[in-house]
Amino acid sequence: MSARTGILLLVSGPSGSGKTTLCRRLSGENEAHYSISCTTRAPRPGEVNGRDYHFLTPDEFSHRVAAGEFLEHATVHGNSYGTLQSEVLGYLSNGTDVVMDIDVQGAAQVRACEDPAIRAALVDIFVMPATEDELHARLSGRGTDSAEVIALRMRNALEEIAHQHEYTFHLHSGTHEEDYLRFKALLLAERLRAARHIHP
Amino acid sequence: MSARTGILLLVSGPSGSGKTTLCRRLSGENEAHYSISCTTRAPRPGEVNGRDYHFLTPDEFSHRVAAGEFLEHATVHGNSYGTLQSEVLGYLSNGTDVVMDIDVQGAAQVRACEDPAIRAALVDIFVMPATEDELHARLSGRGTDSAEVIALRMRNALEEIAHQHEYTFHLHSGTHEEDYLRFKALLLAERLRAARHIHP
Repeated sequence: MSARTGILLLVSGPSGSGKTTLCRRLSGENEAHYSISCTTRAPRPGEVNGRDYHFLTPDEFSHRVAAGEFLEHATVHGNSYGTLQSEVLGYLSNGTDVVMDIDVQGAAQVRACEDPAIRAALVDIFVMPATEDELHARLSGRGTDSAEVIALRMRNALEEIAHQHEYTFHLHSGTHEEDYLRFKALLLAERLRAARHIHP
Repeated sequence: MSARTGILLLVSGPSGSGKTTLCRRLSGENEAHYSISCTTRAPRPGEVNGRDYHFLTPDEFSHRVAAGEFLEHATVHGNSYGTLQSEVLGYLSNGTDVVMDIDVQGAAQVRACEDPAIRAALVDIFVMPATEDELHARLSGRGTDSAEVIALRMRNALEEIAHQHEYTFHLHSGTHEEDYLRFKALLLAERLRAARHIHP
Protein backbone atom coordinates (compact mmCIF):
# COMPACT_ATOMS: atom_id res chain seq x y z
CA MET A 1 0.00 0.00 0.00
CA SER A 2 1.47 3.33 -1.02
CA ALA A 3 1.45 6.28 1.37
CA ARG A 4 -1.47 8.67 1.32
CA THR A 5 -2.74 11.88 2.81
CA GLY A 6 -5.35 11.76 5.57
CA ILE A 7 -9.10 12.15 5.29
CA LEU A 8 -10.97 14.86 7.20
CA LEU A 9 -14.34 13.31 8.00
CA LEU A 10 -16.93 15.92 9.06
CA VAL A 11 -19.81 14.33 10.92
CA SER A 12 -22.97 16.29 11.67
CA GLY A 13 -26.48 15.43 12.68
CA PRO A 14 -29.09 16.33 15.24
CA SER A 15 -28.78 15.43 18.87
CA GLY A 16 -30.07 11.86 19.21
CA SER A 17 -28.63 10.74 15.87
CA GLY A 18 -25.82 8.79 17.50
CA LYS A 19 -23.09 10.67 15.61
CA THR A 20 -20.88 11.19 18.67
CA THR A 21 -20.92 7.47 19.47
CA LEU A 22 -19.92 6.70 15.87
CA CYS A 23 -17.03 9.20 15.96
CA ARG A 24 -15.79 8.00 19.36
CA ARG A 25 -15.85 4.38 18.28
CA LEU A 26 -13.92 5.09 15.08
CA SER A 27 -11.29 6.86 17.12
CA GLY A 28 -11.35 4.17 19.83
CA GLU A 29 -10.49 1.59 17.16
CA ASN A 30 -7.57 3.80 16.09
CA GLU A 31 -9.05 4.35 12.66
CA ALA A 32 -8.93 8.12 13.01
CA HIS A 33 -7.87 10.95 15.31
CA TYR A 34 -10.86 12.48 17.10
CA SER A 35 -10.53 16.20 16.76
CA ILE A 36 -10.97 17.87 20.15
CA SER A 37 -12.69 21.27 20.12
CA CYS A 38 -11.77 24.26 22.25
CA THR A 39 -14.36 26.00 24.37
CA THR A 40 -14.56 28.87 26.81
CA ARG A 41 -17.44 27.36 28.74
CA ALA A 42 -16.74 25.79 32.13
CA PRO A 43 -16.15 22.02 32.25
CA ARG A 44 -19.22 20.04 33.29
CA PRO A 45 -18.86 17.36 35.96
CA GLY A 46 -16.91 14.45 34.50
CA GLU A 47 -15.50 16.38 31.55
CA VAL A 48 -11.74 16.11 31.18
CA ASN A 49 -9.54 18.81 29.63
CA GLY A 50 -7.91 17.48 26.45
CA ARG A 51 -10.36 14.58 26.17
CA ASP A 52 -13.78 16.22 25.96
CA TYR A 53 -12.59 19.73 25.12
CA HIS A 54 -9.57 21.96 25.34
CA PHE A 55 -10.89 24.39 27.95
CA LEU A 56 -9.59 27.89 27.25
CA THR A 57 -10.15 31.23 28.98
CA PRO A 58 -11.99 33.83 26.89
CA ASP A 59 -8.70 35.80 26.60
CA GLU A 60 -6.76 32.80 25.38
CA PHE A 61 -9.51 31.98 22.91
CA SER A 62 -9.62 35.53 21.44
CA HIS A 63 -5.85 35.64 21.25
CA ARG A 64 -5.77 32.43 19.20
CA VAL A 65 -8.61 33.60 16.98
CA ALA A 66 -6.63 36.80 16.29
CA ALA A 67 -3.53 34.69 15.53
CA GLY A 68 -5.53 32.80 12.88
CA GLU A 69 -5.10 29.47 14.67
CA PHE A 70 -8.70 28.30 14.27
CA LEU A 71 -10.05 26.26 11.39
CA GLU A 72 -13.59 27.19 12.49
CA HIS A 73 -15.08 28.89 15.52
CA ALA A 74 -18.37 30.32 16.71
CA THR A 75 -20.01 31.82 19.76
CA VAL A 76 -23.18 30.16 21.01
CA HIS A 77 -25.11 31.50 24.05
CA GLY A 78 -22.08 33.58 25.07
CA ASN A 79 -19.57 30.70 24.96
CA SER A 80 -16.98 30.29 22.23
CA TYR A 81 -16.26 26.98 20.52
CA GLY A 82 -13.76 26.15 17.82
CA THR A 83 -11.30 23.74 16.23
CA LEU A 84 -7.61 24.58 16.08
CA GLN A 85 -5.84 23.93 12.78
CA SER A 86 -3.27 22.04 14.82
CA GLU A 87 -5.94 19.43 15.65
CA VAL A 88 -6.19 18.65 11.95
CA LEU A 89 -3.41 19.68 9.56
CA GLY A 90 -0.44 17.77 10.98
CA TYR A 91 -2.47 14.57 11.15
CA LEU A 92 -3.64 14.87 7.55
CA SER A 93 -0.15 15.41 6.15
CA ASN A 94 1.05 12.38 8.15
CA GLY A 95 -1.64 10.25 6.54
CA THR A 96 -3.71 10.01 9.72
CA ASP A 97 -7.45 10.38 9.23
CA VAL A 98 -9.27 12.91 11.40
CA VAL A 99 -12.91 12.70 12.47
CA MET A 100 -14.74 15.88 13.51
CA ASP A 101 -18.04 15.81 15.36
CA ILE A 102 -19.28 19.22 14.27
CA ASP A 103 -22.49 21.23 13.89
CA VAL A 104 -23.78 22.42 10.53
CA GLN A 105 -22.39 25.96 10.98
CA GLY A 106 -18.92 24.66 11.84
CA ALA A 107 -19.01 22.27 8.89
CA ALA A 108 -19.94 25.15 6.58
CA GLN A 109 -16.87 27.08 7.80
CA VAL A 110 -14.58 24.10 7.19
CA ARG A 111 -16.06 23.67 3.69
CA ALA A 112 -15.40 27.34 2.95
CA CYS A 113 -11.74 26.94 3.94
CA GLU A 114 -9.36 27.52 1.03
CA ASP A 115 -6.39 25.53 2.33
CA PRO A 116 -5.78 22.90 -0.38
CA ALA A 117 -4.84 20.27 2.22
CA ILE A 118 -8.25 20.70 3.86
CA ARG A 119 -10.13 20.79 0.58
CA ALA A 120 -8.49 17.59 -0.65
CA ALA A 121 -9.11 15.82 2.65
CA LEU A 122 -12.74 16.74 3.19
CA VAL A 123 -15.54 14.16 3.27
CA ASP A 124 -18.82 15.05 4.95
CA ILE A 125 -21.66 12.96 6.27
CA PHE A 126 -24.96 13.81 7.92
CA VAL A 127 -26.33 11.26 10.39
CA MET A 128 -30.01 11.25 11.27
CA PRO A 129 -32.82 8.97 12.38
CA ALA A 130 -34.68 7.48 9.43
CA THR A 131 -38.01 9.13 10.33
CA GLU A 132 -39.26 12.15 12.25
CA ASP A 133 -41.15 9.85 14.63
CA GLU A 134 -37.92 8.03 15.45
CA LEU A 135 -36.17 11.37 15.99
CA HIS A 136 -38.93 12.45 18.37
CA ALA A 137 -38.69 9.15 20.26
CA ARG A 138 -34.93 9.57 20.69
CA LEU A 139 -35.24 13.18 21.84
CA SER A 140 -37.93 12.30 24.35
CA GLY A 141 -35.33 10.46 26.38
CA ARG A 142 -36.55 8.51 29.37
CA GLY A 143 -39.86 10.33 29.64
CA THR A 144 -38.68 12.52 32.53
CA ASP A 145 -38.41 15.74 30.51
CA SER A 146 -41.19 18.29 30.05
CA ALA A 147 -43.04 18.63 26.77
CA GLU A 148 -41.47 22.12 26.39
CA VAL A 149 -37.93 20.78 26.70
CA ILE A 150 -38.65 18.04 24.17
CA ALA A 151 -40.27 20.52 21.78
CA LEU A 152 -37.18 22.77 21.99
CA ARG A 153 -34.89 19.80 21.25
CA MET A 154 -37.09 18.86 18.31
CA ARG A 155 -36.96 22.42 16.90
CA ASN A 156 -33.15 22.45 17.22
CA ALA A 157 -32.91 19.05 15.56
CA LEU A 158 -35.11 20.10 12.65
CA GLU A 159 -32.98 23.22 12.19
CA GLU A 160 -29.88 21.03 11.86
CA ILE A 161 -31.69 18.66 9.50
CA ALA A 162 -32.63 21.60 7.27
CA HIS A 163 -28.93 21.67 6.32
CA GLN A 164 -28.62 18.01 5.39
CA HIS A 165 -28.54 18.84 1.66
CA GLU A 166 -25.12 20.45 2.20
CA TYR A 167 -23.64 16.99 2.90
CA THR A 168 -22.41 14.52 0.27
CA PHE A 169 -23.25 11.44 2.33
CA HIS A 170 -26.35 10.73 4.42
CA LEU A 171 -26.57 7.97 6.99
CA HIS A 172 -30.13 7.14 8.05
CA SER A 173 -29.50 5.48 11.35
CA GLY A 174 -30.77 2.00 12.17
CA THR A 175 -29.11 -0.31 14.68
CA HIS A 176 -25.80 0.71 16.26
CA GLU A 177 -23.89 -2.11 14.53
CA GLU A 178 -25.33 -1.42 11.07
CA ASP A 179 -24.69 2.29 11.47
CA TYR A 180 -21.10 1.75 12.50
CA LEU A 181 -20.44 -0.71 9.69
CA ARG A 182 -21.68 1.79 7.12
CA PHE A 183 -19.96 4.74 8.79
CA LYS A 184 -16.62 2.96 8.89
CA ALA A 185 -17.12 1.77 5.30
CA LEU A 186 -17.10 5.41 4.22
CA LEU A 187 -13.65 5.88 5.73
CA LEU A 188 -12.34 2.60 4.27
CA ALA A 189 -13.69 3.50 0.84
CA GLU A 190 -12.30 7.02 0.86
CA ARG A 191 -8.88 5.57 1.65
CA LEU A 192 -9.02 3.91 -1.78
CA ARG A 193 -9.46 7.24 -3.56
CA ALA A 194 -6.49 7.48 -5.92
CA ALA A 195 -6.21 11.26 -5.48
CA ARG A 196 -5.10 10.65 -1.88
CA HIS A 197 -2.31 8.25 -2.78
CA ILE A 198 1.24 9.56 -2.80
CA HIS A 199 3.37 7.94 -5.48
CA PRO A 200 7.02 7.89 -4.55
CA MET B 1 -33.87 4.05 4.68
CA SER B 2 -35.28 5.89 1.69
CA ALA B 3 -35.19 4.33 -1.78
CA ARG B 4 -32.23 4.94 -4.03
CA THR B 5 -30.92 4.30 -7.51
CA GLY B 6 -28.36 1.56 -8.05
CA ILE B 7 -24.59 1.87 -8.33
CA LEU B 8 -22.70 0.68 -11.41
CA LEU B 9 -19.37 -0.54 -10.08
CA LEU B 10 -16.76 -0.94 -12.84
CA VAL B 11 -13.92 -3.18 -11.74
CA SER B 12 -10.73 -3.45 -13.77
CA GLY B 13 -7.24 -4.72 -13.14
CA PRO B 14 -4.65 -6.99 -14.64
CA SER B 15 -5.02 -10.73 -14.69
CA GLY B 16 -3.79 -11.98 -11.32
CA SER B 17 -5.22 -9.02 -9.40
CA GLY B 18 -8.08 -11.05 -7.97
CA LYS B 19 -10.75 -8.70 -9.35
CA THR B 20 -12.97 -11.49 -10.67
CA THR B 21 -13.01 -13.21 -7.28
CA LEU B 22 -13.99 -9.91 -5.62
CA CYS B 23 -16.82 -9.33 -8.10
CA ARG B 24 -18.13 -12.90 -7.84
CA ARG B 25 -18.12 -12.77 -4.06
CA LEU B 26 -20.00 -9.47 -3.97
CA SER B 27 -22.62 -10.94 -6.22
CA GLY B 28 -22.63 -14.25 -4.31
CA GLU B 29 -23.50 -12.33 -1.15
CA ASN B 30 -26.40 -10.69 -3.04
CA GLU B 31 -24.86 -7.25 -2.67
CA ALA B 32 -24.92 -6.63 -6.42
CA HIS B 33 -25.96 -8.13 -9.74
CA TYR B 34 -22.96 -9.50 -11.63
CA SER B 35 -23.24 -8.21 -15.15
CA ILE B 36 -22.81 -11.08 -17.63
CA SER B 37 -21.03 -10.22 -20.89
CA CYS B 38 -21.94 -11.49 -24.33
CA THR B 39 -19.34 -13.15 -26.53
CA THR B 40 -19.13 -14.78 -29.93
CA ARG B 41 -16.31 -17.08 -28.92
CA ALA B 42 -17.06 -20.75 -28.27
CA PRO B 43 -17.73 -21.83 -24.68
CA ARG B 44 -14.71 -23.40 -22.99
CA PRO B 45 -15.14 -26.64 -21.08
CA GLY B 46 -17.11 -25.95 -17.92
CA GLU B 47 -18.46 -22.58 -19.06
CA VAL B 48 -22.22 -22.22 -18.75
CA ASN B 49 -24.33 -20.00 -20.98
CA GLY B 50 -25.94 -17.23 -18.91
CA ARG B 51 -23.57 -17.74 -16.00
CA ASP B 52 -20.11 -17.18 -17.49
CA TYR B 53 -21.23 -15.45 -20.69
CA HIS B 54 -24.20 -15.05 -22.92
CA PHE B 55 -22.88 -16.99 -25.93
CA LEU B 56 -24.13 -15.38 -29.16
CA THR B 57 -23.54 -16.22 -32.81
CA PRO B 58 -21.64 -13.56 -34.77
CA ASP B 59 -24.87 -12.71 -36.63
CA GLU B 60 -26.86 -12.27 -33.43
CA PHE B 61 -24.08 -10.13 -31.98
CA SER B 62 -23.90 -7.82 -35.03
CA HIS B 63 -27.66 -7.54 -35.12
CA ARG B 64 -27.77 -6.39 -31.50
CA VAL B 65 -24.88 -3.97 -32.03
CA ALA B 66 -26.80 -2.47 -34.98
CA ALA B 67 -29.91 -2.22 -32.79
CA GLY B 68 -27.92 -0.14 -30.27
CA GLU B 69 -28.43 -2.72 -27.52
CA PHE B 70 -24.84 -2.69 -26.24
CA LEU B 71 -23.49 -0.47 -23.51
CA GLU B 72 -19.96 -1.34 -24.65
CA HIS B 73 -18.48 -3.87 -27.04
CA ALA B 74 -15.18 -4.71 -28.68
CA THR B 75 -13.55 -7.30 -30.89
CA VAL B 76 -10.44 -9.00 -29.56
CA HIS B 77 -8.53 -11.63 -31.60
CA GLY B 78 -11.53 -12.02 -33.91
CA ASN B 79 -14.09 -12.59 -31.14
CA SER B 80 -16.64 -10.01 -30.08
CA TYR B 81 -17.40 -9.19 -26.47
CA GLY B 82 -19.86 -6.74 -25.01
CA THR B 83 -22.33 -5.79 -22.30
CA LEU B 84 -26.00 -5.38 -23.12
CA GLN B 85 -27.74 -2.33 -21.68
CA SER B 86 -30.39 -4.74 -20.39
CA GLU B 87 -27.75 -6.25 -18.05
CA VAL B 88 -27.47 -2.87 -16.34
CA LEU B 89 -30.21 -0.25 -16.77
CA GLY B 90 -33.23 -2.08 -15.31
CA TYR B 91 -31.26 -3.08 -12.23
CA LEU B 92 -30.04 0.46 -11.61
CA SER B 93 -33.49 2.00 -11.80
CA ASN B 94 -34.77 -0.69 -9.40
CA GLY B 95 -32.11 0.29 -6.89
CA THR B 96 -30.06 -2.89 -7.44
CA ASP B 97 -26.32 -2.36 -7.64
CA VAL B 98 -24.47 -3.84 -10.61
CA VAL B 99 -20.86 -5.00 -10.64
CA MET B 100 -19.00 -5.22 -13.96
CA ASP B 101 -15.71 -7.07 -14.32
CA ILE B 102 -14.39 -5.19 -17.33
CA ASP B 103 -11.15 -4.34 -19.13
CA VAL B 104 -9.81 -0.80 -19.41
CA GLN B 105 -11.15 -0.30 -22.95
CA GLY B 106 -14.65 -1.42 -21.95
CA ALA B 107 -14.58 0.82 -18.89
CA ALA B 108 -13.57 3.78 -21.07
CA GLN B 109 -16.62 3.13 -23.29
CA VAL B 110 -18.95 3.00 -20.29
CA ARG B 111 -17.44 6.24 -18.95
CA ALA B 112 -18.03 7.91 -22.31
CA CYS B 113 -21.70 6.91 -22.23
CA GLU B 114 -24.03 9.92 -22.07
CA ASP B 115 -27.05 8.20 -20.52
CA PRO B 116 -27.67 10.17 -17.30
CA ALA B 117 -28.69 6.99 -15.42
CA ILE B 118 -25.29 5.45 -16.23
CA ARG B 119 -23.36 8.62 -15.45
CA ALA B 120 -25.05 9.02 -12.05
CA ALA B 121 -24.48 5.37 -11.18
CA LEU B 122 -20.86 5.01 -12.18
CA VAL B 123 -18.11 4.24 -9.66
CA ASP B 124 -14.83 2.80 -10.92
CA ILE B 125 -12.04 0.94 -9.18
CA PHE B 126 -8.75 -0.49 -10.39
CA VAL B 127 -7.45 -3.56 -8.54
CA MET B 128 -3.79 -4.47 -8.70
CA PRO B 129 -1.03 -6.15 -6.74
CA ALA B 130 0.83 -3.70 -4.52
CA THR B 131 4.18 -4.20 -6.29
CA GLU B 132 5.47 -5.29 -9.68
CA ASP B 133 7.29 -8.20 -8.02
CA GLU B 134 4.03 -9.41 -6.53
CA LEU B 135 2.34 -9.06 -9.93
CA HIS B 136 5.10 -11.13 -11.53
CA ALA B 137 4.77 -13.79 -8.83
CA ARG B 138 1.01 -14.04 -9.41
CA LEU B 139 1.37 -14.24 -13.18
CA SER B 140 4.03 -16.94 -12.93
CA GLY B 141 1.38 -19.34 -11.69
CA ARG B 142 2.55 -22.75 -10.57
CA GLY B 143 5.88 -22.58 -12.36
CA THR B 144 4.71 -24.80 -15.24
CA ASP B 145 4.52 -22.01 -17.83
CA SER B 146 7.33 -20.94 -20.15
CA ALA B 147 9.21 -17.71 -19.61
CA GLU B 148 7.70 -16.40 -22.88
CA VAL B 149 4.14 -17.01 -21.73
CA ILE B 150 4.83 -15.29 -18.42
CA ALA B 151 6.52 -12.36 -20.18
CA LEU B 152 3.47 -11.94 -22.46
CA ARG B 153 1.13 -11.97 -19.44
CA MET B 154 3.34 -9.41 -17.75
CA ARG B 155 3.29 -7.13 -20.82
CA ASN B 156 -0.51 -7.37 -20.99
CA ALA B 157 -0.81 -6.65 -17.27
CA LEU B 158 1.44 -3.59 -17.52
CA GLU B 159 -0.63 -2.31 -20.45
CA GLU B 160 -3.77 -2.52 -18.30
CA ILE B 161 -1.96 -0.87 -15.38
CA ALA B 162 -0.94 2.03 -17.64
CA HIS B 163 -4.63 3.02 -17.52
CA GLN B 164 -4.99 2.98 -13.75
CA HIS B 165 -5.01 6.80 -13.59
CA GLU B 166 -8.42 6.75 -15.33
CA TYR B 167 -9.95 5.20 -12.19
CA THR B 168 -11.20 7.12 -9.15
CA PHE B 169 -10.43 4.33 -6.69
CA HIS B 170 -7.37 2.08 -6.50
CA LEU B 171 -7.22 -1.11 -4.49
CA HIS B 172 -3.70 -2.41 -3.91
CA SER B 173 -4.40 -6.03 -3.16
CA GLY B 174 -3.17 -7.72 0.00
CA THR B 175 -4.91 -10.72 1.56
CA HIS B 176 -8.23 -11.92 0.14
CA GLU B 177 -10.14 -10.94 3.28
CA GLU B 178 -8.66 -7.45 3.51
CA ASP B 179 -9.24 -6.87 -0.17
CA TYR B 180 -12.85 -7.95 0.04
CA LEU B 181 -13.51 -5.84 3.13
CA ARG B 182 -12.20 -2.74 1.38
CA PHE B 183 -13.90 -3.58 -1.91
CA LYS B 184 -17.27 -4.07 -0.26
CA ALA B 185 -16.74 -0.91 1.81
CA LEU B 186 -16.69 1.06 -1.44
CA LEU B 187 -20.15 -0.22 -2.31
CA LEU B 188 -21.49 0.37 1.22
CA ALA B 189 -20.10 3.90 1.24
CA GLU B 190 -21.42 4.80 -2.19
CA ARG B 191 -24.87 3.71 -1.03
CA LEU B 192 -24.72 6.60 1.46
CA ARG B 193 -24.21 9.17 -1.31
CA ALA B 194 -27.15 11.55 -0.95
CA ALA B 195 -27.37 12.11 -4.72
CA ARG B 196 -28.54 8.49 -5.08
CA HIS B 197 -31.34 8.78 -2.56
CA ILE B 198 -34.86 9.20 -3.85
CA HIS B 199 -36.99 11.41 -1.64
CA PRO B 200 -40.66 10.57 -1.91
